[in-house]
Amino acid sequence: MSRLRVLGVDPGLTRCGVGIVDVARDRSATLVHVGVVRSDPGEPIERRLARIAAGIRAVIDEFAPSVVAVERVFAQHNRTTVMGTAQASGIALLAAGERGIPAATHTPSEVKAAITGYGAADKRQVQTMVARILRLDELPKPADAADALALALCHAWRGAPAASPATTLTPAQRAWADAERVARR
Amino acid sequence: MSRLRVLGVDPGLTRCGVGIVDVARDRSATLVHVGVVRSDPGEPIERRLARIAAGIRAVIDEFAPSVVAVERVFAQHNRTTVMGTAQASGIALLAAGERGIPAATHTPSEVKAAITGYGAADKRQVQTMVARILRLDELPKPADAADALALALCHAWRGAPAASPATTLTPAQRAWADAERVARR
Repeated sequence: MSRLRVLGVDPGLTRCGVGIVDVARDRSATLVHVGVVRSDPGEPIERRLARIAAGIRAVIDEFAPSVVAVERVFAQHNRTTVMGTAQASGIALLAAGERGIPAATHTPSEVKAAITGYGAADKRQVQTMVARILRLDELPKPADAADALALALCHAWRGAPAASPATTLTPAQRAWADAERVARR
Repeated sequence: MSRLRVLGVDPGLTRCGVGIVDVARDRSATLVHVGVVRSDPGEPIERRLARIAAGIRAVIDEFAPSVVAVERVFAQHNRTTVMGTAQASGIALLAAGERGIPAATHTPSEVKAAITGYGAADKRQVQTMVARILRLDELPKPADAADALALALCHAWRGAPAASPATTLTPAQRAWADAERVARR
């Protein structure tokens, strides 16, 4: 069955979430990999970025995603760390570009809306829905890892060609439908 | 004579200035290389960042700087392009880190103060002083290239161990003294 393999990246210098999902044409999704790439805040910035790059490249090389989805960073968010976050997002996009893999960015509210149907959903709601959609026994942790999976799902649902009967549902509705179907099993 | 070779990077997505100077223990400086790494605004972000990375790495590999100095990016500056600038700065720092070269960041006002003695100097003043310090017949162009050279000079002067009689002069005073000495020749 044809499927789209998406690497989602929740960029950060100290913790960079990486999550890979396979999404089928019927929009059902399977967890492939989830993890966090870390760098030591005590190290110089150039070495921290090199560690982040190495960690992301290792995930790309092992799992060969078709596309990389990265959270879009805004200047107005959390000013003390925003530049490090922006630099980490650049590293993730670079890693995709250097492997010839297309990349995309999505805003946090796009991700929340795609996953929960509500653009201002809190982290717990997103984690809960990600766990349901991927049929996980536990919530993915830490939050960075859950956010990375949410990004990957968001990208697949927003970008993938809609297959009937999904055309009649929004991604969020479909997510609920999938989760309910799972819950009924 | 021992000298410090510094690569200065004025980060940008469309134009990324790169300038290399050799700075001697007496703080005199020589131009080694100056240029601009460009990426096409019509290309996807991941490919643009890959081009910037390739351009910076080519300069590092050709000229083997001892240190890389990158302009520090602030969230409040020019919001429409600040995220791309931050990403490009991350790429420059990464390129240093991956080659095992130390990196440093300097604020625009630190650079202006080091080069002209005045933290709020305009671009033309900085370009003029850079040309005098490096004994160039023309102003370095475009402005991104001049800024990259100014960053490299700033780093060398701020970071290099002071040799007598430079200890009695601020970097800016020394720059003027050097420039005047050149003018008297």
